[in-house]
Amino acid sequence: MPDTIVAQATPTGESALSLVRISGDLSIQIMEQACGVRSPTPRHAYYKNYTSNKGNTLDQVIVTFYEENKSFTSEKSLELTCHGNQLIVEKIIDDLILKGCRIAAPGEFTLRSFLNGKIDLTQAEAIAELIGAKSEAALELANKNLAGGLSKEITKIQDECIKQHARLEAFIDFPEDDIGDDQHESVYKEFCSIQKRISGLIDISEKTNAFNKEINVVLIGPPNAGKSSIFNCIIGTERSIVNEIEGTTRDYIDYNLKLKKNHIKLFDTAGIRNTKEDIEQKGITKTLDLIRTSDLLLLVLDSAASYPSDIEYQIKNIIDKDKTLIVLNKSDLNTILCLEKSCLKNFQTLNTSIENPHTIENLIDVIDSHLDQRLNQNMEHNFYVNVRHTVALQNAFQNLEFVLTNLKNNSEIELSVPHIKATVEELGLIVGQKDNEKMLDALFSSFCIGK
Amino acid sequence: MPDTIVAQATPTGESALSLVRISGDLSIQIMEQACGVRSPTPRHAYYKNYTSNKGNTLDQVIVTFYEENKSFTSEKSLELTCHGNQLIVEKIIDDLILKGCRIAAPGEFTLRSFLNGKIDLTQAEAIAELIGAKSEAALELANKNLAGGLSKEITKIQDECIKQHARLEAFIDFPEDDIGDDQHESVYKEFCSIQKRISGLIDISEKTNAFNKEINVVLIGPPNAGKSSIFNCIIGTERSIVNEIEGTTRDYIDYNLKLKKNHIKLFDTAGIRNTKEDIEQKGITKTLDLIRTSDLLLLVLDSAASYPSDIEYQIKNIIDKDKTLIVLNKSDLNTILCLEKSCLKNFQTLNTSIENPHTIENLIDVIDSHLDQRLNQNMEHNFYVNVRHTVALQNAFQNLEFVLTNLKNNSEIELSVPHIKATVEELGLIVGQKDNEKMLDALFSSFCIGK
Repeated sequence: MPDTIVAQATPTGESALSLVRISGDLSIQIMEQACGVRSPTPRHAYYKNYTSNKGNTLDQVIVTFYEENKSFTSEKSLELTCHGNQLIVEKIIDDLILKGCRIAAPGEFTLRSFLNGKIDLTQAEAIAELIGAKSEAALELANKNLAGGLSKEITKIQDECIKQHARLEAFIDFPEDDIGDDQHESVYKEFCSIQKRISGLIDISEKTNAFNKEINVVLIGPPNAGKSSIFNCIIGTERSIVNEIEGTTRDYIDYNLKLKKNHIKLFDTAGIRNTKEDIEQKGITKTLDLIRTSDLLLLVLDSAASYPSDIEYQIKNIIDKDKTLIVLNKSDLNTILCLEKSCLKNFQTLNTSIENPHTIENLIDVIDSHLDQRLNQNMEHNFYVNVRHTVALQNAFQNLEFVLTNLKNNSEIELSVPHIKATVEELGLIVGQKDNEKMLDALFSSFCIGK
Repeated sequence: MPDTIVAQATPTGESALSLVRISGDLSIQIMEQACGVRSPTPRHAYYKNYTSNKGNTLDQVIVTFYEENKSFTSEKSLELTCHGNQLIVEKIIDDLILKGCRIAAPGEFTLRSFLNGKIDLTQAEAIAELIGAKSEAALELANKNLAGGLSKEITKIQDECIKQHARLEAFIDFPEDDIGDDQHESVYKEFCSIQKRISGLIDISEKTNAFNKEINVVLIGPPNAGKSSIFNCIIGTERSIVNEIEGTTRDYIDYNLKLKKNHIKLFDTAGIRNTKEDIEQKGITKTLDLIRTSDLLLLVLDSAASYPSDIEYQIKNIIDKDKTLIVLNKSDLNTILCLEKSCLKNFQTLNTSIENPHTIENLIDVIDSHLDQRLNQNMEHNFYVNVRHTVALQNAFQNLEFVLTNLKNNSEIELSVPHIKATVEELGLIVGQKDNEKMLDALFSSFCIGK
C-alpha cells in the first residue's frame, strides 16, 4: 500500500484561495479527523473548519473527497481549498504530516495516475507540457496529446508493424511456397510507409520542441542607448533605475509580462562595452549568456550616436539576424546613425522614441507578431513530439532501416525479425513502460510540485 | 439582478492547478454551455472538458456548482479548477466574458457576501486580514474576527448603551419623580464602564495593527561592509552581484523568504555614503525610504574598517535602536571596529563572518526571535481592531465623554441623548453599514482579486 502524499497544487503568494491535494488511503481518516466528516459523499464539496491535531482551527476550508478508481491518481484523494495565505497552507500541510502524510515529490500525483493505469506516458507528459505551455500553439498541442492523439498514432504504427511482421513470418515459415515478387514488394512498401510515418513524427519534433519553452526577449546594445528606458516603457513601471551615466545596469533585471498575445520574460542587460571594471564585466558575461539562450534580441542603438567599429563587428558576428530586431532609439532627435549601412541591411529595424508613446506601442506589436510568426508558424501538427519521444522514434527508424535493406537484398529475411520487434518495443517506450524506474524518476521529477 | 462576475482566485504562476471563481445567475448557463452539465447537483465536483464559444476544448476541468443562499456570496456560483497555466486561465476567463461575465473588482465576491447578509463588515475585513496575515499571531486574530469575535463584543457594547439610554429616558420622561442619587450614580457608572470597554478596544488596535503588515528587513550600512554577501548567505543563492568595488548595489534588491518562523522581505540596499554620482544618489534615496518603513534594520559594519565620524552621526540620528541589530561583519579578521564605543552601546550587536556559516545561522535565529518578540508579544487579544474600527471607536469615545460630563453636571440630561445615539451609530459602523457606497468601495478595493 503506497503512503499518502500531500502537496500545495497552486502557486505560493497572497491570493483569495489556495488548493492542497492529498492522495492515498489516509484521505478518509483526514476527512474525519481534520474536517469532522464521516463517510463522506464522494465528490461533494464540504464547507468545514480545518482542525489541527492540537485542536486549533487553522482555517475554514472547502474539502472534497474522491473515491478510489475515480480520482486523478486512482487512489482515494482529497482536494482542500483554504484561504490564499502561505502561512495557512504551511500550517495545514504541517498538520497533515503529523497525521501521517508525506510531502509529494514533483510529479508524484501524475506518476501514480500513470502507474495505476489512468493515463499513458504521453498523456502524463502532456500534463506537464500543458502547465508549462508558453504559447497558444504549445497549449493546443499539449491538449491534443492529453486527449491521446500521439498515443493513438503510435499505437497505429505499432499495429501496422505487427501486421507486416506477421506477413513476413509467413515467408519465413513457408520458404518453399512461391510467395511471389508482388507480395514481397508489397511488404517492402508497407515498411517504407511505416518508416515514413516515423520520420514524419521526427520532423514534427524539431518544430514543436521550440513551442514549449519560456520566451526570453532580451534588450541588448551599447551603453546609454536607452535600453532601460525602453524596458520601463514596455513593462509600464519604473523598475530599473534609468540614468545617463554609462554602465548603469550592471546586474540584469527581468520581468514577466504578457504582450497582446505572448507571455514573455523581458530582460534589461548591461550595455556591452570594453571595460576594466570587474563588476561590470560580470554583468556583460551574463548578457552574453542571455544572448545565446534568447528567443528574440532587441538591439537598441542610439540614432544620434556614432559608434566605434567594434559595434559593427559585434552586430555582424555575435548576433543572429533571424532573431534580432534593431531598435533605433531617440528617433525624435532626428539625427542619422553613424553606422555603416551595410551592417544593418539584413535586419528588421524600427524607430522608437520614449517621447512618442505610440512608437513603443508599435514596438510591442512588432515583438508580438514576430514571436507569433516564429512560434506559431507550424500550426498543422496534431501532436507534440518531445525529446524523449524523438530518441525512441530515431531508434525505431534505424531498426526499420535495417529491415528495409534486408528486404531489398532479399537475403535471410529472418534476420529482420529482431529489428521489427525492436521497432515495436521502441514505439512502446513512447506510450509507457512501467518497469524502468530510472526513466520514470527522471521524467516525473521535472514536473511541478502538486501535480 | 447583479451581473455575473469572474476572477482567478489563485496566484498567477506555473503550478499544478488554478482556480477560477464565478458568481451570479449565469452560473447555471455556463455549467451547461462550457461543461455540458444540465441541472447540476449542487456541490458535486464534475470532471469535464471546458468548451469555448468557438467550440475548442480549452482544458479538462473540475467544476462545482453552488446553490443560491448556500454559496460564499449567497448567489449561484461556480468554482472551476483548471491546470495551472496562466494562458489557460486567461483563455477561460476571456471565454467567460464572451458568455456574459464581467471581471470582478478586488474584493467583490466578499462585498457580495456582505451585501447579501452572509457576513458582517468585521468578518469581511477578517478575510482580507487572514489572506494578508504575515505572522501566526495575525492569523490567529484574523480567525477570531472571522468567527465573529469582534462583532459580538461590539454588539454587546451597543446593547449596554441602549439599555442605559432607556434608563436615562425614564429620568427625562418623569422628571418629577424622585429617581434618587443612587440611580443616577448607577447610570453614570455604567456609561463609564462602557467608555472603558471602548478605550480598551482602542488600546488593542495600537498593538494589533503592527501584526498585519509585510515584514521588511533591510540591510543597510556603509559601502563594502559585506551587505550583499550577507544577503546572499541568508537567501542561500547568489542573486545579488557581490564585488569589492564600493557602490556595487545601486538599485535595491528584494527577496521574499521564510525564516524559521517569520515570512520576511529582505532588502539589500545601496551603501550610504556621500557621492556625487547622480545614479548612486538615487539608490541612496531609495534606501532612506526603506529605512523609514522597515520593521528591522540590519546595520552591517566592517569589523576591520575605520569609519569617518559621519557614520557615527548617522547611527545616532537616522537609526531607531529598537528596530536595529548591528552586525559586525568580517569578524574572522579579528580586528577592532574603529568606532566610538558609546555610539553602539544601546544596540544589540552580533558578529558574523561569511567564512563561518554558523554565524549566519545565528544571525537568522536572532532576526527570527527579534521579530517574534516584537510581533507576537501581545498574544492575549481576542480581536483584531483595525484603523477603520479605531476611527469609529474614537468617535464613540468622544460622544460618551460628552454624556459623562453632562451626567456629572446633572444639567439638562436630555442633551446627552443625541450623543448616546451617535455612540450606538458609530459602533454600528464597525459591524456594517450597507448604504455608504464610498466607504465600501474604499474598503473592498484593498482586497485581492478573486476574493
